[in-house]
Amino acid sequence: WGFLDTWAPDHRSASASAFLRLPRFGVRRSLAPQRAKHLVESADAFVFDMDGVVWSGGSLIAGACEALDGLRSLGKTVIFVTNNSMKRRAELAAELRQLGVDWAEERHVFNSGAAAAALLEVRKVPKDREVYVIGEAGLVDELRLRGYQTSGGPDDALRSIEDLPTALSDLSGQGPASTGTGKMGAVVLGNDRQLNFFKVAVAAHLVRNGLPLVAANDDLYGPQGPVPGQNWPGAGSVMAAVAAGAGRWPPTPDVIAGKPSIDFADAIRAELGGLRASRMVMVGDRLDTDIAFGVRAGMKTLLVLSGVTSEAAAREARGELAPDNVAPSIAALCRTGW
Amino acid sequence: WGFLDTWAPDHRSASASAFLRLPRFGVRRSLAPQRAKHLVESADAFVFDMDGVVWSGGSLIAGACEALDGLRSLGKTVIFVTNNSMKRRAELAAELRQLGVDWAEERHVFNSGAAAAALLEVRKVPKDREVYVIGEAGLVDELRLRGYQTSGGPDDALRSIEDLPTALSDLSGQGPASTGTGKMGAVVLGNDRQLNFFKVAVAAHLVRNGLPLVAANDDLYGPQGPVPGQNWPGAGSVMAAVAAGAGRWPPTPDVIAGKPSIDFADAIRAELGGLRASRMVMVGDRLDTDIAFGVRAGMKTLLVLSGVTSEAAAREARGELAPDNVAPSIAALCRTGW
Repeated sequence: WGFLDTWAPDHRSASASAFLRLPRFGVRRSLAPQRAKHLVESADAFVFDMDGVVWSGGSLIAGACEALDGLRSLGKTVIFVTNNSMKRRAELAAELRQLGVDWAEERHVFNSGAAAAALLEVRKVPKDREVYVIGEAGLVDELRLRGYQTSGGPDDALRSIEDLPTALSDLSGQGPASTGTGKMGAVVLGNDRQLNFFKVAVAAHLVRNGLPLVAANDDLYGPQGPVPGQNWPGAGSVMAAVAAGAGRWPPTPDVIAGKPSIDFADAIRAELGGLRASRMVMVGDRLDTDIAFGVRAGMKTLLVLSGVTSEAAAREARGELAPDNVAPSIAALCRTGW
Repeated sequence: WGFLDTWAPDHRSASASAFLRLPRFGVRRSLAPQRAKHLVESADAFVFDMDGVVWSGGSLIAGACEALDGLRSLGKTVIFVTNNSMKRRAELAAELRQLGVDWAEERHVFNSGAAAAALLEVRKVPKDREVYVIGEAGLVDELRLRGYQTSGGPDDALRSIEDLPTALSDLSGQGPASTGTGKMGAVVLGNDRQLNFFKVAVAAHLVRNGLPLVAANDDLYGPQGPVPGQNWPGAGSVMAAVAAGAGRWPPTPDVIAGKPSIDFADAIRAELGGLRASRMVMVGDRLDTDIAFGVRAGMKTLLVLSGVTSEAAAREARGELAPDNVAPSIAALCRTGW
């Protein structure tokens, strides 16, 4: 089972139609060159997760440029979708260019921070309200690009409980955005490597008093540090602390902006002029975010094993976690292989 | 419904036997002096929660000394049980003395930090293993008093993600206490007002790699700051961040040491020479910790409204959250009132 693709139980009609269906366990075959060619020919657009798919530990994954350029030379739309809210889209595009994806621009990149900002607008959080942020500079920037005022984020990195009583008094009595008299409109959180008690306390206070809690994503943990193989807590851990501190159990946000949210997929498709989901392929390394995202949105899916998911975990995936296709890496899409 | 007591649906036999039973909604009557006298006469020991019951916002609640002294003069055992793990028992006893409860000693106080340390021993975590702590000095002290080596806690208050890769590398490959080759035996957490990303990441890493997660308590939030009416996140918020970061969803610890854990009640009763639960009264201000603790342990319960629970919430409580008796404050137990 080295170089395989997977036909999962048919939980959607879009991509499964080309494949043999079995009722429970699916059929797995190698993603032979001919199969890869079919997959490419069956789609107009390819959506790539970034970390673990295009790059890993600061280097481009072997064959990534060839695969991406090959798809573009065939006239395919190629975009990048990431749950990383710590950097803004322009930074992520710049990193792609630095690594050799020289055509990458901000418009090719969709991240969960920008998605969170877009969803605030969709949900009509007024722009004269302030958004309290737990997250890094990229999340703050995306919210400001969308016209929101922000507080928190990096500005509160060094604040301690000495500052908390005054901060909470200043914010007390804030109602929800739709009815409140206060200046705050929402709490938005993403991963924050400068998380501290002050930020959790302020965010929990606001949510407990009625403000909506928007999570850029809810990944529980992932490879975020400089050392390959180490996992650091993700935005899901931050969300759990805030929601629990607000009295919600189990901890739940009001909105999750990133993958696997179907709102995110809809926003991306709309931004690209109404691409048909059934003619799109989601390529990712995580089952619970990337593959579930593609499946929910009605895209074809390709799991690559160059990131966090093991072959064994991929083999056991069922339902919306089960990918249509599995390959060792993005290199399986290189035209030279066909 | 000002000065009331509550007969809840009869979910246990111990204290309800004296009262009229109705199948679903219970009967509520005022805790008239005669009723208070009966309650006192029916019990040998009184277990008081501290914050919101004996003191509030740094002052003794009116009538507390009289009530406590009166019970002792009748030969009742009087002890204090708190989910506060931030201070050690000796400090909590000293605070009681400073406020006027001049007979209070360490042996009268049972807190969730000491309970967590005792449970590590019960669960046979070897004493040559180190315990990683998220919590304040009192929790570290109780663990050390019980013979455990600790790391984390206040020592990691100023550590940042710069220190994280090395810290995780040092700790990598740690197995569970029973089988591991490493030096770590458990992760213990309580509330920590110096919570930061570094601590969450280290604790989550250890739990993800098999160490047991012990929570001193799992209160989601509570009045912990200097300003009355403000609520700060509790140990349940810390626990949620760590357990989620370890990949557990919903976030769950392996052990919860504090109220309402029946292990805690058993440990206290054993320490006091085998008190009978049915001859004990739990007096507290929270339904989900204090009242559930008393109910689960088979004690009678008295909810006081001098803390976090409103009259309306008390009225709606059902099942193990429903107190047998309700009073405005601890002063209802003063003998002068009978």
